[in-house]
Amino acid sequence: MTVPDPISDRLNGSLPITSAAEAAATIADDATVLTSGFGSVGYPKAVPLALAESNRDLALTLVSSGTAGEEIEVDLVEAGALDRRFAFQSSAVAKRASNDRSIAFSDRHVSGIGDEVQFGRLADPDVAVVEAVAVGEDWFVPSTSLGQTPAFVEATPELVIEVNHAQPLELAAIHDVYRPGAPPDRGPIPVESAGDRVGESVVRFDPETLRAVVETDRPDSTYTLREPTAVDQAIAANLRDFLAAEIERSPAFTDALHLQFGVGSVGNALMGAIGDLDVGDRELVYFGEVVQDGLLDLLDAGHLSAASATSLALTEDGQQRLFADIERYAEDIVLRPTDVSNHPGLIDRFGVVGINSAVEVDLFGNVNSTHIESTRVVRGVGGSGDFFRNALVSVCALPSKLSGKNVSRVVPMTFHVDHTEHDVDVFVTEQGVADVRGLAPVERAERIVEQCAHPDYKPELREYLEEVTQQHGHAPLDIERAADWQS
Amino acid sequence: MTVPDPISDRLNGSLPITSAAEAAATIADDATVLTSGFGSVGYPKAVPLALAESNRDLALTLVSSGTAGEEIEVDLVEAGALDRRFAFQSSAVAKRASNDRSIAFSDRHVSGIGDEVQFGRLADPDVAVVEAVAVGEDWFVPSTSLGQTPAFVEATPELVIEVNHAQPLELAAIHDVYRPGAPPDRGPIPVESAGDRVGESVVRFDPETLRAVVETDRPDSTYTLREPTAVDQAIAANLRDFLAAEIERSPAFTDALHLQFGVGSVGNALMGAIGDLDVGDRELVYFGEVVQDGLLDLLDAGHLSAASATSLALTEDGQQRLFADIERYAEDIVLRPTDVSNHPGLIDRFGVVGINSAVEVDLFGNVNSTHIESTRVVRGVGGSGDFFRNALVSVCALPSKLSGKNVSRVVPMTFHVDHTEHDVDVFVTEQGVADVRGLAPVERAERIVEQCAHPDYKPELREYLEEVTQQHGHAPLDIERAADWQS
Repeated sequence: MTVPDPISDRLNGSLPITSAAEAAATIADDATVLTSGFGSVGYPKAVPLALAESNRDLALTLVSSGTAGEEIEVDLVEAGALDRRFAFQSSAVAKRASNDRSIAFSDRHVSGIGDEVQFGRLADPDVAVVEAVAVGEDWFVPSTSLGQTPAFVEATPELVIEVNHAQPLELAAIHDVYRPGAPPDRGPIPVESAGDRVGESVVRFDPETLRAVVETDRPDSTYTLREPTAVDQAIAANLRDFLAAEIERSPAFTDALHLQFGVGSVGNALMGAIGDLDVGDRELVYFGEVVQDGLLDLLDAGHLSAASATSLALTEDGQQRLFADIERYAEDIVLRPTDVSNHPGLIDRFGVVGINSAVEVDLFGNVNSTHIESTRVVRGVGGSGDFFRNALVSVCALPSKLSGKNVSRVVPMTFHVDHTEHDVDVFVTEQGVADVRGLAPVERAERIVEQCAHPDYKPELREYLEEVTQQHGHAPLDIERAADWQS
Repeated sequence: MTVPDPISDRLNGSLPITSAAEAAATIADDATVLTSGFGSVGYPKAVPLALAESNRDLALTLVSSGTAGEEIEVDLVEAGALDRRFAFQSSAVAKRASNDRSIAFSDRHVSGIGDEVQFGRLADPDVAVVEAVAVGEDWFVPSTSLGQTPAFVEATPELVIEVNHAQPLELAAIHDVYRPGAPPDRGPIPVESAGDRVGESVVRFDPETLRAVVETDRPDSTYTLREPTAVDQAIAANLRDFLAAEIERSPAFTDALHLQFGVGSVGNALMGAIGDLDVGDRELVYFGEVVQDGLLDLLDAGHLSAASATSLALTEDGQQRLFADIERYAEDIVLRPTDVSNHPGLIDRFGVVGINSAVEVDLFGNVNSTHIESTRVVRGVGGSGDFFRNALVSVCALPSKLSGKNVSRVVPMTFHVDHTEHDVDVFVTEQGVADVRGLAPVERAERIVEQCAHPDYKPELREYLEEVTQQHGHAPLDIERAADWQS
């Protein structure tokens, strides 16, 4: 069907409008529910809350591509409604449930979850519940994130749409919904420049699947970012110096620099610091996963020519700032489905410099992004693997020690590996920069200790390294000794 | 310049022809040398041998994208000529040198080495030495593999070409040299079907870089494959059963099945077993890294509609079989540069089912492809990571125990991780199939033990699992106990 242009109504055509409670009642107790939501925004709110408050004995499987907000991450979890969860989670209570294994959590790469639901065997969906700002007979306009919503809508037999009056209708201008189709006939993704629009502003659905449309006005659970600490600022300064040298050195950055930053306070602080990077005549482009507040600063200052992402993962202030001027921001910001924003082929195409944080890194350059003491999951791998693995230059930026604790984040071995030694090129802490490209394992270890470890732990790390390098082997280890660092 | 069609001469135009010794003498003692060669074929022979026999005090850095043959992997290593090696190695002596760290070996993903040399910081090249079957003023026809040769030729300031009279001129028909260009302007790779030809049959070079052309007739160090064992056959049968069910289940395989197999005897045995897989009306396509003998069988039997790879990694028999009928085989076989054959975006595009082996796998689904006892490197990660990470369905196929030894290849934890729990979907041993898609870590562990472990080790693995699952945590570990399995 034709989508009105401009879209001036929230509800277009004859739609099965119900209350949230009625919509929730159509969902079976043990259903597999796919939801929109990424970066704690753009997730459905009223129907999950109605499920949480239903007093039913629920045993749901819930699949979201990124973080949802309170109603899912807290209310549904506290109600004991979830048996199984993909592919990311947050909140203290969700983390606790994953770690006491009352929820079976499976942590997956963001770029692949759509395919895993549609063609793999991640879960067999019963219903998708998504948030929109407007809906028509076979289309809806997503709200503040896209995530894997288009893939979920293609995969689901039943669809429930929440139309959120608290989200501006003008968000239509920001979305670019391109669908790659099913393999093997997907063909090349025609995004030739990071800001290209190659799809529609709406997600299409099969009208036969539409079960309910629910109206709501609940706001997003926006991010809360801490102020950058002195350590964050030192990391940012080291990263900036590295980037300044790298763009002069590599012919891949002669005309443009494409950057991606991980989600969170460190990522946001790093985005902020890019404002001081002198890129000369180069175009500065963001090709990442989330738009955070620091990116709005870069856009407002005219530093960025385009920003491609899948979520407006802003603070409340940042969201208001964007909502007040969506059409201007939409000239530069494009939200894409996660199977496009994080697509390995596109990350390769643009030669992205990917900058992501971690829980800890080890001496050979393995990275643990997800588990405390290698056993207790914090959130999930998210898109970090998409970028660590496919970026032209992969940077891991993190504080050298845990703030306020006697714990080094540079350890002899990490016993939970999310990104391997083959995938990370450069480590940055507030102590310095370890560029480990072209180095063998033991050389990497020496450089990481000397450049990145905190002075409090350097002597012990050097001692460990001295001991293991007495041994034979390409990548010598002392597992027992390394295990002592796990507490 | 125009390439003659057909190419009837080995040497076309005025070329700086020298002896191998003279060419070797132009290479500095501490040069960084990029070479052709992949799957132990198509590598330069005369110049490396001349270097090995030169009695010079060499301290070379050698970069090949895959395995070279004897003259490099044995002669140069035994001559003590190599200080540093990328990005794969083989032979007992090369392995020994990596493990006593007399050669600084750095193990990299096959798909990325070209970019790492051109735009990253893997190595600063001095000279590329490549094998060809014919050469002109600004082009040459590669021989039995492509590997990262085109990227190396683009990156190098000096070029030495060996024209090998032992390799048939007709190999021109088999190559498809497409160059993606530099980021961010590479654009989509226009390969829309696995058998498409989108480039030239020759590699282009800047004539200013050409230092020497050397004639030789040394043959490739072709593969020696062992006869499939009963265990190989049982793995193959389990894999076949899995694939038969999977192609019925997933809508991605309605019309076609794209397969990739890892290099080696197990891979070859698995390729062979595909002849018995009933794919119905589906097209069966190979989109992988190497053409092994088993693939020629599939082609000869008319089972395959196309085979895309980067190397003709055949046995001597297989090579003779192919050489006797190159033009017929070239109708179906396309050799591509490794940054195309193993491109993450293309693996995604075709929905490849990737099947690769490993040294060991652990209970959470982490895979060690490279290190014995987690410390001693065997060969390298090669293209296994490209396919494990990007395949629509990633299969790890391996024997459940080390042949003739009291060593389980299913272990509680692997302390060297090449592919993480996020990347592998299905494990296959001669014992059975563990499809771990959609499972949380502890569930994966149970399934891997029950379906894939050897009966000799099941009781101990169950006991380990029972013990750790008493503990709190999403992915509980007993590092000390797991370390006992390391010998």
